[in-house]
Amino acid sequence: MKIAIDGMGGDHAPKEILEGVFQAVEDFQDIEFLVYGDEAKMAPYLKSHNRVKVIHCAEVIEGTDEPVRAVRRKKDASMVKMAHAVADGEADACVSAGNTGALMAAGLFVVHRIDGIDRPALSTTLPTLDGAGFDMLDLGANADAKPENLLQYAIMGSIYAKKVRGIEKPTVGLLNIGTEEKKGNDLTKHAFTLLKECEDIHFIGNVEARELLNHVADVVVTDGFTGNMVLKTIEGVAGNMFSMLKDAFMSSTKTKLAAVMMKNNLKEIKTKMDYTEYGGAALFGLKAPVVKAHGSSNAKAFYSAIRQTHLMVEHEVCETIDSTISKEN
Amino acid sequence: MKIAIDGMGGDHAPKEILEGVFQAVEDFQDIEFLVYGDEAKMAPYLKSHNRVKVIHCAEVIEGTDEPVRAVRRKKDASMVKMAHAVADGEADACVSAGNTGALMAAGLFVVHRIDGIDRPALSTTLPTLDGAGFDMLDLGANADAKPENLLQYAIMGSIYAKKVRGIEKPTVGLLNIGTEEKKGNDLTKHAFTLLKECEDIHFIGNVEARELLNHVADVVVTDGFTGNMVLKTIEGVAGNMFSMLKDAFMSSTKTKLAAVMMKNNLKEIKTKMDYTEYGGAALFGLKAPVVKAHGSSNAKAFYSAIRQTHLMVEHEVCETIDSTISKEN
Repeated sequence: MKIAIDGMGGDHAPKEILEGVFQAVEDFQDIEFLVYGDEAKMAPYLKSHNRVKVIHCAEVIEGTDEPVRAVRRKKDASMVKMAHAVADGEADACVSAGNTGALMAAGLFVVHRIDGIDRPALSTTLPTLDGAGFDMLDLGANADAKPENLLQYAIMGSIYAKKVRGIEKPTVGLLNIGTEEKKGNDLTKHAFTLLKECEDIHFIGNVEARELLNHVADVVVTDGFTGNMVLKTIEGVAGNMFSMLKDAFMSSTKTKLAAVMMKNNLKEIKTKMDYTEYGGAALFGLKAPVVKAHGSSNAKAFYSAIRQTHLMVEHEVCETIDSTISKEN
Repeated sequence: MKIAIDGMGGDHAPKEILEGVFQAVEDFQDIEFLVYGDEAKMAPYLKSHNRVKVIHCAEVIEGTDEPVRAVRRKKDASMVKMAHAVADGEADACVSAGNTGALMAAGLFVVHRIDGIDRPALSTTLPTLDGAGFDMLDLGANADAKPENLLQYAIMGSIYAKKVRGIEKPTVGLLNIGTEEKKGNDLTKHAFTLLKECEDIHFIGNVEARELLNHVADVVVTDGFTGNMVLKTIEGVAGNMFSMLKDAFMSSTKTKLAAVMMKNNLKEIKTKMDYTEYGGAALFGLKAPVVKAHGSSNAKAFYSAIRQTHLMVEHEVCETIDSTISKEN
């Protein structure tokens, strides 16, 4: 398979991106990489390899660029050319650690939606205390969702959980402000009915935000506004608590000693809460896998995103979404 | 002033409720209490006091009761009679640790809205790392909000922050999935415009969920669905992290020793994250203060809710909301 890479996207590009790529090319013998980016800037980190092809691009989409405009105007940007490689059939999938909004725009306007998909969704696997994780979608591709969108998210998330994460019969929960069927806003009340009637998913009802880290469902669906909000709340609270803990451990000689004694245990908790371990975020509903590695990706995180993309291509996630959605419609 | 109390609401009623009341009657010489509840059940915790009047009620609204139906049918319930005391002018405000939905229904159908208020909002002061806290509303009184509702929430929250929390010029943030003006869903985009134009508040723009605990604003407004979701996410993540930490500290002799060394520091973090310390939740937009103490309230938490109610009556929060809203309309 061929995977197109945005060599210039992310806080630590091109160094960490290319290190991730060269690690992956060793581990996955069936991947050929097409790496898009500024040849001069990438040169220090490039090695000659028969399965890594470098394509020079003069432009880069910055984190501060307005997404839709950047994709439309910067036609020679690494991210845009990477997406065109997928659209033109030169690559089977693409990965970028760059501007999330721009990647969504490139996915939508260059790679294109699967027929019958109204709105693509951004999804990632978030941590649970038992280590299994759950897929949440939409994380912000579409701020104003309709009930029908949430149904499609549930179908797409279930296919991903089954194909990529190997869960035989993934449970689907609807993120809501109460577990009873009649709870919620207009959107969740209507979505509940659609989800309950769908035979392609294993819907278990409403799930509450309080229970998310306790692995209440394998797939959790919500509108992009709420999903983004909940994701950022988790990040914020976890980050704040780690920083309070750090301050507490650094406050005196006694507590510094306690920190040494707790070092491995604290590291374990931090790893448990670190969702970059689970790979990147994927855009579901496009004709081919478009994967977003975390903006602050190091080589390991970018490698994880490539591994995830490899699984999505290998297990034909997009093809299965396509055939399931045409059956539903 | 007279404050009506639901003696039977909450997980630890009537014992902890009445202990809170008898503590408050000592500390606040200007409060007379009207305590509604089952006399036989309350008897072991009642003392004779010239400023505490007990009114027997045969019924109780349970946590499992359907809120609106319970308020309509259980006419002799302590919560309903407490609300009627306010509506009839016998009391200036009321406090309950019972069923939140039922208290909202009692507020709406018995105490009634202030003229011009379209939807009341549930609000509480949530913790920030600097100890100052911020008021968030709506926490779930109204799942489907309109932009105009968010504007009224901002006005009401500002009045509360000024009158009760003593903040001269409270900053107001709109909870959103990005800080830029054009970010968000239809609701936040429209609300942004209204908030920006309002002269009765000090609007500072969009604030992100990730930053909430860093005291980005004194008042944060959002729709009830999102507010409830974010509140429960904060509770869930904080609770899960404390339980992971507890497990880590209990895992070996060495870590148990570290726990002893860190005891005071950990307690401090726990106190910082404990929003029951800040008092109860209040329903804004009703003709008189209707305050909800946490369902698991002990005497101290219920006492805090009474203290907060006392401040709301003393500083005429509802009267100020009334006059400000009539000026706006």
